Amino acid sequence: MEGRDLLAYEIYIYVCYSGRSTGEMEEQVETVGKAFVDHYYHLFDNDRPSLTSLYQPMSMLSFEGQRLEGTENICNKLNQLPFGQCHHAISTIDAQPSSFPGGIMVFVSGSLQLPGQDYPLRFSQMFHLIPAAEGNFFIQNDIFRLNYG
Amino acid sequence: MEGRDLLAYEIYIYVCYSGRSTGEMEEQVETVGKAFVDHYYHLFDNDRPSLTSLYQPMSMLSFEGQRLEGTENICNKLNQLPFGQCHHAISTIDAQPSSFPGGIMVFVSGSLQLPGQDYPLRFSQMFHLIPAAEGNFFIQNDIFRLNYG
Repeated sequence: MEGRDLLAYEIYIYVCYSGRSTGEMEEQVETVGKAFVDHYYHLFDNDRPSLTSLYQPMSMLSFEGQRLEGTENICNKLNQLPFGQCHHAISTIDAQPSSFPGGIMVFVSGSLQLPGQDYPLRFSQMFHLIPAAEGNFFIQNDIFRLNYG
Repeated sequence: MEGRDLLAYEIYIYVCYSGRSTGEMEEQVETVGKAFVDHYYHLFDNDRPSLTSLYQPMSMLSFEGQRLEGTENICNKLNQLPFGQCHHAISTIDAQPSSFPGGIMVFVSGSLQLPGQDYPLRFSQMFHLIPAAEGNFFIQNDIFRLNYG
């Protein structure tokens, strides 16, 4: 999503579920999940402070077992990670509708290349996305784990 | 949870959130998450057909990218996996309250030893647990992925 700004992203992922068949809804959920994943890791890798736009005061992050709540705490943690430029490569994306109307569960696996490291680290991450009033989504739940072994 | 039956499990994980402080609620969410994980993989490894008790008609499973809905489809998939006896070893459990009242997000990483295989397979799995009327939980969302690479 190189060059897309937040407004374009919001328009891109806006989805109206009403009146859609199960097949269409499945497809839409997958489209939104993929658009979100592209956007999230693009921001993470290129403009990490902008991730603040994706969290809200009730958001929760579990990062390698450390639990944080609220936009400020979460973004402080992400911005203070002990590495600058990094690159996420996504291997798999699974998306399902959640029990919250219009909400989406997204499960990601991939690898994270850190500067100066020979090999990327494998990771898994899940997001629970909740529709926001403006037609976009925010992250209610975010759980990140490196895959060891 | 060797030897515990479903009723004992239901009693064990019954949690009333009302009137609890944030710290107590966090602890309860983690306790329920851990109890669920112990129970789920104990059934998977020892009595796979009994997993049917944890799903409902609106449940969803994404298993290695294949999406299934409903108790019957999900349990048929799990019971027809091309291996019998197996053993899950859990490495990490993260749990957070979800946006659904009393709901819990659980994120698991671990390894799966299959019969006749020299090395276990690493996996990640997430569950969205929703409280059921009887004081126990059912699985609304279940996403499973093996970790390759």
